[in-house]
Amino acid sequence: MVKTAVILAAGMGSRLGEITKDLPKGMLVIDEKPIIEESICKLIEAGIERIVLGTGYLTQVYEQLASKYPQLVCVCNDLYEKTGSMYTLYNLKDHISADFLLLECDLIYEKHSLEALIKHNEPDVVLASTLTESQDEVFIETNELNRLVNMSKESAALNSIYAELVGITKISYSTFQAMCRYAATQYATNQCESLKLNYEDALVGISKNFSIYVQKLKNIVWCEIDDKQHLLRAKQFIYPMIKAKEKNCPPVQRNILLNPGPATTTDTVKYAQVAPDICPREKEFGELMQFVSTELTRFVADPKEYTAVLFGGSGTAAVESILSSVIGADAVLIINNGEYGKRMCQIAEIYGLKCIEYQSAVDQALDLAAIEAVIQKSKHKISHLAAVHNETTTGLLNDIGAIGGLCKRYQICMIVDAMSSYGAIPIDMEAMNISYLAASSNKNIQGMAGVGVVIAQKAELDSTQCLKPRNLYLHLFAQYKYFLETKQMRFTPPVQTLYALKQAIIETYLEGINERYRRYSEAWVVLLEGITRLGLTHLVKIEHHSRIITAIVEPDTPGYDFKEMHDYLYRHGYTIYPGKLNAMNTFRVANIGAITSKDMELFVKLLEQYLKDIDYSSPRREKHGVSKT
Amino acid sequence: MVKTAVILAAGMGSRLGEITKDLPKGMLVIDEKPIIEESICKLIEAGIERIVLGTGYLTQVYEQLASKYPQLVCVCNDLYEKTGSMYTLYNLKDHISADFLLLECDLIYEKHSLEALIKHNEPDVVLASTLTESQDEVFIETNELNRLVNMSKESAALNSIYAELVGITKISYSTFQAMCRYAATQYATNQCESLKLNYEDALVGISKNFSIYVQKLKNIVWCEIDDKQHLLRAKQFIYPMIKAKEKNCPPVQRNILLNPGPATTTDTVKYAQVAPDICPREKEFGELMQFVSTELTRFVADPKEYTAVLFGGSGTAAVESILSSVIGADAVLIINNGEYGKRMCQIAEIYGLKCIEYQSAVDQALDLAAIEAVIQKSKHKISHLAAVHNETTTGLLNDIGAIGGLCKRYQICMIVDAMSSYGAIPIDMEAMNISYLAASSNKNIQGMAGVGVVIAQKAELDSTQCLKPRNLYLHLFAQYKYFLETKQMRFTPPVQTLYALKQAIIETYLEGINERYRRYSEAWVVLLEGITRLGLTHLVKIEHHSRIITAIVEPDTPGYDFKEMHDYLYRHGYTIYPGKLNAMNTFRVANIGAITSKDMELFVKLLEQYLKDIDYSSPRREKHGVSKT
Repeated sequence: MVKTAVILAAGMGSRLGEITKDLPKGMLVIDEKPIIEESICKLIEAGIERIVLGTGYLTQVYEQLASKYPQLVCVCNDLYEKTGSMYTLYNLKDHISADFLLLECDLIYEKHSLEALIKHNEPDVVLASTLTESQDEVFIETNELNRLVNMSKESAALNSIYAELVGITKISYSTFQAMCRYAATQYATNQCESLKLNYEDALVGISKNFSIYVQKLKNIVWCEIDDKQHLLRAKQFIYPMIKAKEKNCPPVQRNILLNPGPATTTDTVKYAQVAPDICPREKEFGELMQFVSTELTRFVADPKEYTAVLFGGSGTAAVESILSSVIGADAVLIINNGEYGKRMCQIAEIYGLKCIEYQSAVDQALDLAAIEAVIQKSKHKISHLAAVHNETTTGLLNDIGAIGGLCKRYQICMIVDAMSSYGAIPIDMEAMNISYLAASSNKNIQGMAGVGVVIAQKAELDSTQCLKPRNLYLHLFAQYKYFLETKQMRFTPPVQTLYALKQAIIETYLEGINERYRRYSEAWVVLLEGITRLGLTHLVKIEHHSRIITAIVEPDTPGYDFKEMHDYLYRHGYTIYPGKLNAMNTFRVANIGAITSKDMELFVKLLEQYLKDIDYSSPRREKHGVSKT
Repeated sequence: MVKTAVILAAGMGSRLGEITKDLPKGMLVIDEKPIIEESICKLIEAGIERIVLGTGYLTQVYEQLASKYPQLVCVCNDLYEKTGSMYTLYNLKDHISADFLLLECDLIYEKHSLEALIKHNEPDVVLASTLTESQDEVFIETNELNRLVNMSKESAALNSIYAELVGITKISYSTFQAMCRYAATQYATNQCESLKLNYEDALVGISKNFSIYVQKLKNIVWCEIDDKQHLLRAKQFIYPMIKAKEKNCPPVQRNILLNPGPATTTDTVKYAQVAPDICPREKEFGELMQFVSTELTRFVADPKEYTAVLFGGSGTAAVESILSSVIGADAVLIINNGEYGKRMCQIAEIYGLKCIEYQSAVDQALDLAAIEAVIQKSKHKISHLAAVHNETTTGLLNDIGAIGGLCKRYQICMIVDAMSSYGAIPIDMEAMNISYLAASSNKNIQGMAGVGVVIAQKAELDSTQCLKPRNLYLHLFAQYKYFLETKQMRFTPPVQTLYALKQAIIETYLEGINERYRRYSEAWVVLLEGITRLGLTHLVKIEHHSRIITAIVEPDTPGYDFKEMHDYLYRHGYTIYPGKLNAMNTFRVANIGAITSKDMELFVKLLEQYLKDIDYSSPRREKHGVSKT
């Protein structure tokens, strides 16, 4: 077992500007302790008994820290201004006499990363992750046996990219000696450049003769802090995520929700609800609200021009808030091609809005020309148009971009119910000309139910302040204004749901919306292939499909019963959803939430078993059989 | 250490009727395992190595269970139909040769109850609790040294009541021998009655010569199941509470919220939010919704005649739901003597209701005669009257009962905003003539914020279905009707907040609303005595005070600054609240939530320290000083 660690901490951290004027990088504080101290504590917890700090810039600060920990020894590289990280390591050669973990000082990471290296069978292991897109990546090239071949900050310099360097490496004593010999040869050339050698270069340099294993871990959370942007990202996303993962609470029974929200959540989101009691009028909570509002906005728009207004309530509350708050005496054109378009018409009617309903088939793409004709022929001035992005009834994806273009031409303000697309399907409110977008905390964003979200263009929203309010609780401008002034909701917010939403936002950010949509789509492909193989059909053509929720036509066989099928699947941990179309018998399967295509594979197998049990044999499959004979 | 346990399981459980026809009482299943098996598992976990079951009725069922556990041995009392529990125990004398824990078979209890006895220094210890009011209590009388003096089901038979018998007792071998000798003497009388002797009688019988310690534990949760009412109570309240307490999650940092809600919650409520993901359209969740709705109603009314309608949203959403949904063309008289009365007027105005505002001083009791005069003189027919019960602005408690009487005389339907009284101050909707009551999940009920609650008289509510809806999300009748039909909210509910609310209801039930109000009042008395001692004054006279929230007049001294005081207290874990009165400078302290008078004592000390730090010396105290000289 490795008992020694080396932390490279000589650098000046000059990209952090004035922050590192009097403080070396490792001494940055994100939570309570300097990041290097957090690292030291994790190392000690992992069984490391001796930690050698290769210092340089402001070495005295680290020496002071060392006095707190008997395990620590500082060895200063006096040439730190001119040398690369390998020289700092080389400088430690009289202090190292065993295998060790090598770490960079500006890392924050999960403690299980250390265990993964310490317990690894190989003597030399570079820890790597999937690509973080942090803008300062060291890419790794390996051979087919996952052995190190090359590393570079320039992806073009490599033949292929296998993973990204984390900055934690297990190095055996013999490999360390080889690295030192390699470095010494370089230094002997007496070229100034040679002093700039980094430890990565030395590893690559010896990798032809030494077998260095690259261990890629898929779900580790970590970051390096090199500049202010990194620091902000670390504070807002990486560090809270590491803390959430390290909470060490018992795992919760995992159910796979294939209903269209609330969706399956991660345990970290679930446990984020458990927070010390707080009065939501406190500044601390205002900061959380501000984070939630800003980051929800940033997923779809620039927070300078747009803002997210939050309500305690469901997604429908958000839709009602928009419709009841932003439309004046002119008409709203509502596109109804499913249950949620219909619901918007219902809201408009209740509030006595001047409403033009445009009905379209639930399983067909919209006819843009026809909508344009409605606009042109309308007796009333149409100030607003409202449409659903992804109809939860069917999975039909309305072409919001095209409708937005139309609205732009006719100077119509567009309202989009993005309840079941937001957080998965990439949306650009500005490019799509969306002024108001409704979403919720519990679908693709993978939080808990209880927060309705309106994302609004600020200038549009400001213009609604002159309208007479139609309600109190859901009044959009009042909610917005109050938040601007106080960072609070007007009325008691669902505090714990907002904590969970913050965590869900962090996880969405770390996964990325494109990647999330890719994951969802992968599960959807498994579903589509599965049901097709089983002889079932889906309602909406693939080219108009959201890939998020699928209305599947019920099998036409006497043995079939939705409730029985549902209960069978439910007993196996899967929840599906009934259809919501009067004219067609469908059931619905959503592929959202913290699920993978593996979960969907199992679902297809269960569905297959159910269909077998009821002796279902598809007419399509029968036909297929006939044509074969 | 005790290694033996004895479970008395001979009884017929005849009070449970047909349930125990083919099943002895211990085999009742509440969750997954029979209750006796749960008990056996807890005993084994507590280190018990041998368990002797004193069986009788349907002994073969227990013998089958015994085959699963090598620790178990069954000894049948063939005379079980004629004998009391002592005979079953006496019958085991050849099987017991050491100290043991004696348990009744129909108990459910927390596992730490066992540890409390096993680790106790005394050799003979009766476990006792505070009074449960379960209607089948065995009361205990002790001497001043907490030694057993007497036990009886008749409280009148005792000189004093110290505690209630749980049914778990640690008995040393020598005491057991004495109990057997005592029983043998009784049996030797040959009186039929003597066979009916219970083990409690034997304990009392020997207690003059043997010192039997009674250990009262204040917060243990347990029950015995003797009849169907007990069984229902066990299923709905006791068992879930035990499970919640045994979850074994790390404790959460405790903050004392003295703001008027959200209040301090227990860790069990916090962790109740962490549940496996569920689609709220599932039957299982419908049962939770039904429980929440029924039990919220039962705290203030008979669920046959009244119902609780739930919304995802704050308390204000509930108030707006009522006002916007139940008032037709006639007028509503709104009593405004604080911020929340004013808010009701604001809602009425937005919706264009015919509204008569009755203003009254924020710190004075209402003038009933004046209100009556308003009713009599009104040009419009007044169909509804709306009032706040406990004004959160000041702590002024409006006399809702008297207003209800007035409404009854004039056939006016009464609406009460009971946001900060519900769950603490006893309310009887029928007696007080309240038709609609608004509450929330996050104040005295001690749940998490996110659910607005309307409790309504069903007949009244039914009569509103003909009114034209004024909104969608908050429409009361639609929400009620949908719930009746489906056990669901119309729109996605805040799932996890409802889990927490269920747990909060269980805890409110177990504490009891009277007892909760007593606890709150105790903390309030500490507060009032404290601020009076410190020379501060409160706004509302004690006779009109709710004892729940207190508006305190700010000290009139240059050093005073609310924010500084708040921050000082906040740093020490206490949150207070600013005032909400324009005319008077006040700050507010609420004494609600999972707090005790001890917490309030510490608060007063902190406040004293703050006032000392700003050199505050009250004019009242100064005057007092002057009069002394």
